[in-house]
Amino acid sequence: MAKMMTKRLTGIAASPGIAIAKAFRLNNADYVPVADKAADTQIEVNRFRKAVDEARQELEEIRLLTEQRMGAAKAEIFEAHLMLLEDPDYVDAVIDGIEEEGMNAEFKLHEIANCFIEVLSAMDNELLRERAADVKDVTGRIMSRLRGVSYAAIAAINEPCILIAEDLTPSDTAQLNLDYVLGFVTEIGSRTSHSAIMARSLEVPAIVGAGAAAGEIQTGTMVVMDASLGTVLIAPTEEEVAEYQSRKLAYDQRREELRKLLDQPTISADGQHVELAANIGSVEDLQKVLANGAEGIGLFRTEFLYMGRSAMPSEEEQFQVYKHVLERMNPKPVVIRTLDIGGDKELPYMKLPEESNPFLGLRAIRLCLSKQEIFRTQLRALLRASAYGQLKIMFPMIAVMEELREAKQLLKEEKGKLVQEGVPVSENIEVGIMIEVPAAALGADFLAQEVDFFSIGTNDLIQYTMAADRMNETVSYLYQPCHPAVLRLIHMVIRAAEREGKWVGMCGEMAGDVTAIPILLGMGLHEFSMSASSILPARALIKEVSRTEWAGYTQQILAMSSQEQIQQFVKQKTRSDLQ
Amino acid sequence: MAKMMTKRLTGIAASPGIAIAKAFRLNNADYVPVADKAADTQIEVNRFRKAVDEARQELEEIRLLTEQRMGAAKAEIFEAHLMLLEDPDYVDAVIDGIEEEGMNAEFKLHEIANCFIEVLSAMDNELLRERAADVKDVTGRIMSRLRGVSYAAIAAINEPCILIAEDLTPSDTAQLNLDYVLGFVTEIGSRTSHSAIMARSLEVPAIVGAGAAAGEIQTGTMVVMDASLGTVLIAPTEEEVAEYQSRKLAYDQRREELRKLLDQPTISADGQHVELAANIGSVEDLQKVLANGAEGIGLFRTEFLYMGRSAMPSEEEQFQVYKHVLERMNPKPVVIRTLDIGGDKELPYMKLPEESNPFLGLRAIRLCLSKQEIFRTQLRALLRASAYGQLKIMFPMIAVMEELREAKQLLKEEKGKLVQEGVPVSENIEVGIMIEVPAAALGADFLAQEVDFFSIGTNDLIQYTMAADRMNETVSYLYQPCHPAVLRLIHMVIRAAEREGKWVGMCGEMAGDVTAIPILLGMGLHEFSMSASSILPARALIKEVSRTEWAGYTQQILAMSSQEQIQQFVKQKTRSDLQ
Repeated sequence: MAKMMTKRLTGIAASPGIAIAKAFRLNNADYVPVADKAADTQIEVNRFRKAVDEARQELEEIRLLTEQRMGAAKAEIFEAHLMLLEDPDYVDAVIDGIEEEGMNAEFKLHEIANCFIEVLSAMDNELLRERAADVKDVTGRIMSRLRGVSYAAIAAINEPCILIAEDLTPSDTAQLNLDYVLGFVTEIGSRTSHSAIMARSLEVPAIVGAGAAAGEIQTGTMVVMDASLGTVLIAPTEEEVAEYQSRKLAYDQRREELRKLLDQPTISADGQHVELAANIGSVEDLQKVLANGAEGIGLFRTEFLYMGRSAMPSEEEQFQVYKHVLERMNPKPVVIRTLDIGGDKELPYMKLPEESNPFLGLRAIRLCLSKQEIFRTQLRALLRASAYGQLKIMFPMIAVMEELREAKQLLKEEKGKLVQEGVPVSENIEVGIMIEVPAAALGADFLAQEVDFFSIGTNDLIQYTMAADRMNETVSYLYQPCHPAVLRLIHMVIRAAEREGKWVGMCGEMAGDVTAIPILLGMGLHEFSMSASSILPARALIKEVSRTEWAGYTQQILAMSSQEQIQQFVKQKTRSDLQ
Repeated sequence: MAKMMTKRLTGIAASPGIAIAKAFRLNNADYVPVADKAADTQIEVNRFRKAVDEARQELEEIRLLTEQRMGAAKAEIFEAHLMLLEDPDYVDAVIDGIEEEGMNAEFKLHEIANCFIEVLSAMDNELLRERAADVKDVTGRIMSRLRGVSYAAIAAINEPCILIAEDLTPSDTAQLNLDYVLGFVTEIGSRTSHSAIMARSLEVPAIVGAGAAAGEIQTGTMVVMDASLGTVLIAPTEEEVAEYQSRKLAYDQRREELRKLLDQPTISADGQHVELAANIGSVEDLQKVLANGAEGIGLFRTEFLYMGRSAMPSEEEQFQVYKHVLERMNPKPVVIRTLDIGGDKELPYMKLPEESNPFLGLRAIRLCLSKQEIFRTQLRALLRASAYGQLKIMFPMIAVMEELREAKQLLKEEKGKLVQEGVPVSENIEVGIMIEVPAAALGADFLAQEVDFFSIGTNDLIQYTMAADRMNETVSYLYQPCHPAVLRLIHMVIRAAEREGKWVGMCGEMAGDVTAIPILLGMGLHEFSMSASSILPARALIKEVSRTEWAGYTQQILAMSSQEQIQQFVKQKTRSDLQ
């Protein structure tokens, strides 16, 4: 047999790491039952009810397992599955179909579920489309029980492998036995699909959206995956396997070394301290924050409190969450951002008018100032929680002085009321703003006079400065964090804050970017806030960089005319072998 | 009888001016015919055909009249009406209905037309919704003929009046006899509805969207309208009439005075020349440009060539239009902007993917660089036309240097080809860019090295700097042309261009704003381009303002922290009684 070329695939790097093992192809091909008359409709209904009960038991177990392994938030998905089993439009519709038409259970289940899936898939709403995957998952589970086969073969895996699947359902991912499953590759999915999020949470290497070609990988074929890059090698040569084994060794060693930095402060090569903080989007993220040695929370997004529900969260409910986070982090600081809804984040129960350009619309502080009751409730919850830790309050999307003054006035009013009511409120709450609108960066000098701190939100600042939607693929070439225009704005903001003796942080993706870090350090940024997993690599990088040296490069960098030029400059100067 | 209070209404100021006269209520209440059997279907069909023929003749006459009075573009609407008379789904459907059902012509016409109107009105497309008004207009015309009454009474007006109507159809507006109709007020409509556009073109005072209360004004009631403010006084007192008569006198005198500035150059109080140019959006606008003494065209929007049609315009078609404008304006300069489609302007035949935030999407130069054949065709047409006048080519939405270089490269390539083909091309074409993306303003220093001029597009620059959609009412408080952030960007751009010896114009609304003009003059802006009707007021204002004096205020203004503060400063300094 002629020597075959190694086949290579590229997918989306969903969760980093390197794995080398034989493939295990998960075969979840859709089973299409044949329409048949049931011999006895009562027996048929009972058979279906039994299958549903068994599915319920399985789901309860998986829910519990997931909660233990990945926290309550990740387990919620299975509550949704369990609720579907109680949905009369679903289970009862199948039973009615069997009774009235005298058809077999498999056929009616397939028919009703497909109807659900089609309707949900056609929806213009991402959340509802995701519900279609849930219906598919639950239906597959009941169907397997009806047919007396096991649902998926994941639980049966008992030797080291790389799992290959069209897609992994949440229940698949939850059941992964990480003693054997060293990584997984799926044909479809995106960085934000359930399976990708769960993979990052479990810290298992994962590549998603690798295309139909991934589906052709057969069980037993040797596979190498580099999930930091998104590459899959199918049937690699011995040399390739050896190469990736040494890469994996280096990767693992680097992780080991980074762990040593866990409890160390973040000190630059010339001995200056900067603060490395974490961005969190829910209470569950706290665990990772502490596990990765963050020196505080630089951005606590509060939207999760408002989303995925049917009404506003109460003041008490918010208070409990803020208090919990502040207590867990104490004495480390926690910057809590007030509600940033609107833009790409919708709240169906608020019934806001549709906007032609939601990113340029009534979002964040604009919405809060126009719906003051919602805002006041959040402010009261924050003020009450302030007694339990080091709270800093941050207003998002401030563009003009009037907005800042109005937001501060409302905060002052609510504080006054609480004090009068005898509720303990901290006297040391810092109040700051996000700098994410170009107008705020350009007006940082006068805004700095009326805040305690700035935090630069680069994701939005870049999109507005470039006038390019950061979610729009066709203009992604304009999303340039190190473009001179962006760096000039950042520099203006830091200088303006320094003159007023205020501190400046950054909580966009850019704060964890290896090219940007030396530049930002040189400009004098005080705090870097990023996803928890970026903290240790950033700490290692900062240890190698001299703030004084990079301060000397600032003017030179700001005079350059393109991101490319700046990136090359940084590459030349840092001889870092990081990443 | 007790003395009544004067009733006041407010509507949308659609076309400026003051008028005082008795009301004439145009009664176009919908006629609802009774369903009846026709005595003889053949006679009924003939009666209908005759009415259609008469309507056709009337429309031909109105079309001709409109073309003579308002130009070919404004007359196009009647071609649409005439085409509707040839539409088999419309006329033939009525005839079929009469023949098959034996019903009377009025009833069938009403039924079929209503069906059209309902479907069109429900469309999600502005253009199609406007077509509903056309169907209504044509149907009313045929119906009047069937009934033997005259369609609307506009032609019968023979004494001075202010016309009051629910809405004016295009054919109503076209037939206005301006010897008698001194102004009009409508219940519905917007600044961009047909009647508003035509009123501005005819220079007749008009207020639209004044609400149902306007419909209650009876023929013969005295009415005062100030269409510069949008106010209507119903049955005013003698004192009020006297007051408005003197206001009208002042208004007319001011217009007279402005006309004296028609052929004068634009010179500031301290004797410095600036260029006052006009923005145009079609060839028809040329007339007003010349009639208002513009020193050039600072912005020729080329989108009209691409819109309202079913395929791209050919190179030859574009060439003829560009050549015509350049020749008419020669030796005055004409800045032609390359295609700025996308954002709020769509081309159905291009089938571009829908975007979540079209203002931050694939628009203008971004689209042209991604669909190069469309762009090259326009560049060739421009290059060929350059031999016939003073052409300056301007690229819109440039954000980064790479885009500028690529656009210039394509221009160079097309020029090379034409020269090789022996086609005459000017050697003196200036090439510039719009500064409307914050990144371009912040990077103006390096962009200035590779262009001949800048033109600041404030409408977009403000919207991106403030991150506030300029079409979105809920964030309109953020649309602040004189916010320090905006003025600082403008100042950066002018300074950067000066250092490279390049000129800077402005072609957004702000260029004609009385508060902004002294500030911009002081900063050293070279060219102000605005709608033709703003040119003479701007020339009068500039005559009163000393550039040297205002240059002295620049730093003081740039240090202020809000638009309000800046506006007050300008008000104090200019004791101008203009406007």
